[in-house]
Amino acid sequence: MGNYEHRKATQRVKFTDENGQAVAGQDVHVKLANHKFLFGSGANDIIPPEEMTDEEKAKSPIPADRYDVINGISHKWMDLFNYGTMHFYWGTYEPIEGHTRFENHMRTAKFFRDHGVKVKGHPLCWHTVCADWLLKYDNATILQKQLDRINRDVSAFKGVIDYWDVINEVVIMQVYDRYDNAVTRLCKDLGRIRLVKEVFDAAKAANPDATLLINDFNLSESYRILIDGLLNAGVPVSAIGIQTHQHQGYMGKEKLEDILERFSFFGLPLHFTENTLISGELMPPEIVDLNDYQPDEWPTTPEGEERQRKEWKEMYELLFAHPQVEAITGWDFVDGAWLGAPSGLIRKDGTAKPAYDELKKLVKEEWTTDYTVHTDSEGYAEVTGFKGEYEAAFKNADGSEGSSKFTLE
Amino acid sequence: MGNYEHRKATQRVKFTDENGQAVAGQDVHVKLANHKFLFGSGANDIIPPEEMTDEEKAKSPIPADRYDVINGISHKWMDLFNYGTMHFYWGTYEPIEGHTRFENHMRTAKFFRDHGVKVKGHPLCWHTVCADWLLKYDNATILQKQLDRINRDVSAFKGVIDYWDVINEVVIMQVYDRYDNAVTRLCKDLGRIRLVKEVFDAAKAANPDATLLINDFNLSESYRILIDGLLNAGVPVSAIGIQTHQHQGYMGKEKLEDILERFSFFGLPLHFTENTLISGELMPPEIVDLNDYQPDEWPTTPEGEERQRKEWKEMYELLFAHPQVEAITGWDFVDGAWLGAPSGLIRKDGTAKPAYDELKKLVKEEWTTDYTVHTDSEGYAEVTGFKGEYEAAFKNADGSEGSSKFTLE
Repeated sequence: MGNYEHRKATQRVKFTDENGQAVAGQDVHVKLANHKFLFGSGANDIIPPEEMTDEEKAKSPIPADRYDVINGISHKWMDLFNYGTMHFYWGTYEPIEGHTRFENHMRTAKFFRDHGVKVKGHPLCWHTVCADWLLKYDNATILQKQLDRINRDVSAFKGVIDYWDVINEVVIMQVYDRYDNAVTRLCKDLGRIRLVKEVFDAAKAANPDATLLINDFNLSESYRILIDGLLNAGVPVSAIGIQTHQHQGYMGKEKLEDILERFSFFGLPLHFTENTLISGELMPPEIVDLNDYQPDEWPTTPEGEERQRKEWKEMYELLFAHPQVEAITGWDFVDGAWLGAPSGLIRKDGTAKPAYDELKKLVKEEWTTDYTVHTDSEGYAEVTGFKGEYEAAFKNADGSEGSSKFTLE
Repeated sequence: MGNYEHRKATQRVKFTDENGQAVAGQDVHVKLANHKFLFGSGANDIIPPEEMTDEEKAKSPIPADRYDVINGISHKWMDLFNYGTMHFYWGTYEPIEGHTRFENHMRTAKFFRDHGVKVKGHPLCWHTVCADWLLKYDNATILQKQLDRINRDVSAFKGVIDYWDVINEVVIMQVYDRYDNAVTRLCKDLGRIRLVKEVFDAAKAANPDATLLINDFNLSESYRILIDGLLNAGVPVSAIGIQTHQHQGYMGKEKLEDILERFSFFGLPLHFTENTLISGELMPPEIVDLNDYQPDEWPTTPEGEERQRKEWKEMYELLFAHPQVEAITGWDFVDGAWLGAPSGLIRKDGTAKPAYDELKKLVKEEWTTDYTVHTDSEGYAEVTGFKGEYEAAFKNADGSEGSSKFTLE
């Protein structure tokens, strides 16, 4: 555990029962209920069918033979993660100007919040999955609509979603040439730094307490130079988002350490925002844009699953050991999502792969705190453990079972 | 000439003789004497032996059999160029702390100035050819010495050298790992933007009217992102320096046009600061750091010289046609300088290669203005021609030969 000391805290905690009486001279069982560290996954439509309203079920009918599978997947998600990334792609969140998926997204986001899961919205500005209806406007109007969109959505979800990928993949944005889109037009017009500043300033104004991320798959010095420029231009970046979609093979420890070393330079928290390790055949190395490879069948295999387990374990351990890393998010939770890849921790049939069990063991067994302390005559005890929210169990003065909560940080 | 209209001006010029009398109703011969555009080359020890003082000759003796060759080389340089890059590498300009080559450099720079040649000092901050004696200091002291050096040299040469490559090759600077050096230490400590800001601010304070360049060989989006960051951080960059050392082959029109398109984005002048086209065998494509290839013999060849002529012509024409380009500087003037390459316009024996003749024809014959105008009764005539400094020849009132100067811009 030597590598994880920075994840822990020691605090003198006062335990009181529900009547405010000190729990004095007693054994108190303390247990980490929710990590401060953000263990995350992609998170859309994750509400278990059994918790859906009749109206919701009517809207998105679930085939009878999938009901238990989907329930199981939802529970597996909730059993492991405390951080979810919800899609706010402009083109799908607002497919027709003025018609958003607000209600659906708010319902899901509140479900997460009420279950102790923090939610991040992804992303507010991006050249891909952009809204086509923007293309009819001139650049000044597009910029205004982009800023209005940010203000609208960040304001509406404030208190429910307080993490945002404000802008995505800026390194390539100005030279993105696969198809015309409104955001590349803006970037070509304003340049990267000015566009990023505009969208961050809008997000910050709408929710000053939010954690605002920049996010990229290009982890070369270009991205570091960009961040350097943004911070010197006063852009309110709260955390640096790092993508690692490793469909072409695990990058390995050395490359990860290089990324950590280079991007920790700024002293900002690092979020590993989108991470993929697959459990099937690797994507050929000559593919440059991952979207160009989507085979008809891309099965998970036993040997692939064992490889994926080892890779996820090494990556989790390495990132959890680095003091500046605050979040690790696996991209797909279930196989067959993006590109149809065997990229999940869960197979299509809802069963858990070895990687799921491995990560659950790390997060819920190895990196957890669960022991008994003894309080002094005033109800105080020193607690040492992983940072996060705790539950304490003890006997009330009348001998009944009592409990309380506290935070180690 | 259609491509070069932006290089020309039309102006109503009043011609007066040396007594201030209007040259009225006369034919006046106007001739471009010095382009506004900067046609440049590397420029060190270019003073012709015949113009050296005895003291200078004693200091740097010239073998009798090289006297005419060196004289010829110097004259060829002065016949073509109006812009020279002088080396101010910290490690060679100040090899021992406090002992600079000030006198030598000032003499050369003044020689240029007095012959209508603008001089650029290269560079004030760079991780290569850095002063080794800096390594004994801590980073705060190195930074102070770097800023002091800039203040000292830019101040001392003000009015003689008003162009500076303030910092060189910043894209690689923070991750440069071939050897330890004081400037990479600074860059690792401060980051790129802050270091660049510090050195530019120092240069600007020392000579507010100077043209201050950033310069790089890395012409990828990294450099563009860097410049974007610098400008948004208020760094006083006057012009963007672009290197093209094409030892591995001419990059061609399409690549040059791409560079022009991408780097013209900022609206700043572009200086092609260091350009090499060789007239011998090409450097193998697998070499990454050009310094790693320095064969014992690297001869110029007839076919290579013809190829080099065509390439220089195309490049000159393309760059001269772009409105934002203000300068083109060939790196080596004579073969056998950097890397021992056949990179000059002049052979080692002092004879001109076809490329030299080609460029001279462009600059001095095609892109020049030399014709006769007729003045009105008040001495005015409209002059149209390439921008720059002009000489006018006419008859004085007493019938003697008269002349004057004017500028078209």
